[in-house]
Amino acid sequence: MWNNNEVTRRLNIKYPIIQAGMAGGPTTPELVAAVSNAGGLGTLGAGYMTADQMKKSIKKIKRLTEKPFGVNLFVPQHADRNTEKVEASNRLLWPIRQTLHLMTPSVEIKSENEQFEQQIQVIIDEKIPVCTFTFGVPERKMLHQLKHQHIITIGTATTVREAEICENLGFDMVVVQGSEAGGHRGSFAVPYEQAMIGTISLVPQTVDHVSIPVIAAGGIMDGRGVLAALVLGAEAVQMGTAFVTCDECGAQKLHKESILNSSEDETTVTSAFSGKPARGIRNQFIDSLKPYEKSLPDYPVQNALTKDIRSEAAKNHRPEWMSMWSGQSTRLSKKGSASQLIHSIVAEIEDFDLHL
Amino acid sequence: MWNNNEVTRRLNIKYPIIQAGMAGGPTTPELVAAVSNAGGLGTLGAGYMTADQMKKSIKKIKRLTEKPFGVNLFVPQHADRNTEKVEASNRLLWPIRQTLHLMTPSVEIKSENEQFEQQIQVIIDEKIPVCTFTFGVPERKMLHQLKHQHIITIGTATTVREAEICENLGFDMVVVQGSEAGGHRGSFAVPYEQAMIGTISLVPQTVDHVSIPVIAAGGIMDGRGVLAALVLGAEAVQMGTAFVTCDECGAQKLHKESILNSSEDETTVTSAFSGKPARGIRNQFIDSLKPYEKSLPDYPVQNALTKDIRSEAAKNHRPEWMSMWSGQSTRLSKKGSASQLIHSIVAEIEDFDLHL
Repeated sequence: MWNNNEVTRRLNIKYPIIQAGMAGGPTTPELVAAVSNAGGLGTLGAGYMTADQMKKSIKKIKRLTEKPFGVNLFVPQHADRNTEKVEASNRLLWPIRQTLHLMTPSVEIKSENEQFEQQIQVIIDEKIPVCTFTFGVPERKMLHQLKHQHIITIGTATTVREAEICENLGFDMVVVQGSEAGGHRGSFAVPYEQAMIGTISLVPQTVDHVSIPVIAAGGIMDGRGVLAALVLGAEAVQMGTAFVTCDECGAQKLHKESILNSSEDETTVTSAFSGKPARGIRNQFIDSLKPYEKSLPDYPVQNALTKDIRSEAAKNHRPEWMSMWSGQSTRLSKKGSASQLIHSIVAEIEDFDLHL
Repeated sequence: MWNNNEVTRRLNIKYPIIQAGMAGGPTTPELVAAVSNAGGLGTLGAGYMTADQMKKSIKKIKRLTEKPFGVNLFVPQHADRNTEKVEASNRLLWPIRQTLHLMTPSVEIKSENEQFEQQIQVIIDEKIPVCTFTFGVPERKMLHQLKHQHIITIGTATTVREAEICENLGFDMVVVQGSEAGGHRGSFAVPYEQAMIGTISLVPQTVDHVSIPVIAAGGIMDGRGVLAALVLGAEAVQMGTAFVTCDECGAQKLHKESILNSSEDETTVTSAFSGKPARGIRNQFIDSLKPYEKSLPDYPVQNALTKDIRSEAAKNHRPEWMSMWSGQSTRLSKKGSASQLIHSIVAEIEDFDLHL
């Protein structure tokens, strides 16, 4: 068992389980290393990191594991830096800022392209075995540069067509993100509303249309979900929310508790926190900004505008203003170490006996 | 194989495959009988039928099969019969009616409760083995009346809580309808937007919280989907869209062709046709009424208002005004007989060999 799989063979891991590269804090070096040490692929969510922050985290991961691990990056996009939208958003956020004693920030958005090129250089310099991308696809030249260094590249798709784009561009593998998935949607070729395809539907349809390995994401939290994904034709799974409640995860304590205490119908997709649609546990922030969602600034501007609110809310124990990303399988979440999670999934699959 | 399953044992069928009771024409006696004869459970979609129409269809099914089959009913609901909304809707529909040379109908909505009680009486008189419900739950008394006659009752749920309500009320089994499913949403205890849970997420979470058998629906079209559903903990599957393109199905030819030619990102959930959210292939009717959805009359009023438009559009080869219900797995749809579909699924599962 566990030796007849293209993904595990090419990634040089034991089990076809990838920990999603969740940006913004959850993917501590401890979590990434724990997942890789347990036989999966840990992934550093470096989307928001500078090159220096990346290097620091990578060095720490390397001290904690000798196993392969991945780094996830955000592909830069053209965002409309509309001043009126920024002002309108700040007016909406003002009552929350006032309660939290926060000043309205003067948000300076650096060039995403420059940071992205620096991030890619770190991947190459540090000889990271696996580089995963979301929010679109990089230029073909950049992808070839990584492949030339024998770095495995993995794209993210939310429709069959997006997966085909990933394959045609030269990605080695593709994560297909079902509508159940927590956090940001990876949609880039169609409006996200059109691309809310459930995992049980998206995986077999994609498998039939691309020849690179398909990695299933969205709603998968335990052995049943992993085995179902493999049955559907995926070669591996990527799990985010399942790892958020793990001991090693750097997510806020309130965020972890909220996932552990939520039912499956308490998440929603919102653009209110970042300007880009993402699934999280519904709270007052999401509900109060819902009527204005279309008029908020795009990602990454809105993300920068709400950053201080979200972190200050966590400090002040105000979950109603925090972004608590989560997929739809909240009731399957558990406390424990990442190693316990992976080993319980593996044991569940090894013991699986379907009486037909 | 195929003899260790509570659903097949209790329903006295060979394979854990239920054909969804799609109302409004698709479930011809030929389709229902073909599915039951092939070892699944055919279901007559009687939601819109009078008692007499039901009796006629049931007699025909009985002539075509000696195997068990089911009938699906709509649980009546309190609909707001707002005259202003009806007038507003008719104004919106007027340009289409004009093109199709249709008069504005004087819609007379009969009491749904009376028809429902008559339908239940037919179920009892005709000794139908299985009665499935959607759009809510009937009164406990009515459910007990059916159970007293040894009729197996199956509810429809879109969240764990709805499944728990079905179990507590005394249903023998429950269909859980994932967000991928085509046709009308069965949500009744929470607003449908909250209850768009993907099948891969909904099934295991429900299985963990109810003890009656769970039947998975939504996005399942082939052996991979059926096996995945069973792995997730379902005891059976219910498939709708997979049967729509079958030879015996009474769906409009344009509807069948549209499913066969669509990709997974071309469906959407709309209330424009019936006043109740349903997933179908996006077309001009849906798009043009989208801005007014909240102001349209509730089901069943809007359904009655658009009925003539939909059937006349089919006659005039105008798919842009037809309701073409479909789930998200359109790319998996195939032509052929219902028997071919069931046997290809069974063969796929029997030959399944997952190399881990």
